[in-house]
Amino acid sequence: MREAYRDQLGQLANQLADMCSMVGDAMALATRALLETDLALAEQVIGDDSKVDDARAKAEEEAYALLALQAPVATDLRTVLAVIHAAESLERMGDLALHVAKTARRRHPNPVLPEPVKAYFAEMGKVACKMAAQAEEVIRTQDVKLARELDETDDEMDDLHRHLFTVLMDRQWEHGVAAAVDVTLLGRFYERFADHAVSVANRVVFVVTGKMPGYDTDEL
Amino acid sequence: MREAYRDQLGQLANQLADMCSMVGDAMALATRALLETDLALAEQVIGDDSKVDDARAKAEEEAYALLALQAPVATDLRTVLAVIHAAESLERMGDLALHVAKTARRRHPNPVLPEPVKAYFAEMGKVACKMAAQAEEVIRTQDVKLARELDETDDEMDDLHRHLFTVLMDRQWEHGVAAAVDVTLLGRFYERFADHAVSVANRVVFVVTGKMPGYDTDEL
Repeated sequence: MREAYRDQLGQLANQLADMCSMVGDAMALATRALLETDLALAEQVIGDDSKVDDARAKAEEEAYALLALQAPVATDLRTVLAVIHAAESLERMGDLALHVAKTARRRHPNPVLPEPVKAYFAEMGKVACKMAAQAEEVIRTQDVKLARELDETDDEMDDLHRHLFTVLMDRQWEHGVAAAVDVTLLGRFYERFADHAVSVANRVVFVVTGKMPGYDTDEL
Repeated sequence: MREAYRDQLGQLANQLADMCSMVGDAMALATRALLETDLALAEQVIGDDSKVDDARAKAEEEAYALLALQAPVATDLRTVLAVIHAAESLERMGDLALHVAKTARRRHPNPVLPEPVKAYFAEMGKVACKMAAQAEEVIRTQDVKLARELDETDDEMDDLHRHLFTVLMDRQWEHGVAAAVDVTLLGRFYERFADHAVSVANRVVFVVTGKMPGYDTDEL
């Protein structure tokens, strides 16, 4: 019984790690769709989002079954609940990649991004994917130190986000309000994606250490 | 034992309902701070946000204790998990009210909102508070029909949000890009607040009916 429980928990952790990889790939493709004005890529991300939703539903169902059948306590209970929370964050990360892809589709065949902000989004896309990969690694290794590194990567994202706003707010901005609105929302999608990646990692830290680091501080 | 369990669950539901009322009040005050350029109100919302965070931590802790001590199954298990999810959504609603208040503070003594969009935010504020009140009512009554009404109120919010974008995208917009960026983010905060209220109500529906309505479809 006990061993079966460990196996199931290990499988659940694997599913979560796979979800990290799914949403990281989705964000990578969505970013390319955005930068390269590539409708086919955008459609691919949009079509694939239901796979993330399904993976989340499956993980949640299995976590519920574990709770009902094994009635875990203490650390085991915390672990299963962390899985449920992390799966929710990961689905949300998938949704945010979806939003990026939908923005690219909505403006096609026109590009969404004016030239001066393209480099920011290329970089934010890279950082977002790095964070999804780091979160995956944290789940697979339960390495608390690595989880803290995610905070540093999140700082990179926040810096990029802040600089992006400086560009937007500059009186020299000559790309109109419609583009500014798109850029504002897109910036927020990447920043929230990063926040959720931190939140996933923090849940793992909670399981390992019993202490929840401060999380989900999305400052503008 | 069984009775103690019911009591604890009832208390938890009360705490959630109280959280609805807290975040509804926070959004009402934040909206006034925004519309009336009132720094003191903004500071009040910002100072009070930790109360929502504490209420969430308390609800989550008690839900964990219930799971550990009573090991509920079937509907009882679903109920406790719904509480955990709903508490998370409610904390997020508090964060969104906080963001509105922080935006008002950041621009003070200047108003954030250009005249032509003020009426939209007055209305979005009203709808947001109505939804928090409806979610509270759903929790207190477990009335599934009422939960469906929240979807309709959410449609009102989506309509307002869409119209707001039409105003922003209009070539006549003469309030500059910085104001447009603020309005874009603020619009998103209200719309997300509404989405989370729907999500809270849907969790109650799930407990009562065993079926999860489609939720969290934040379309732009």
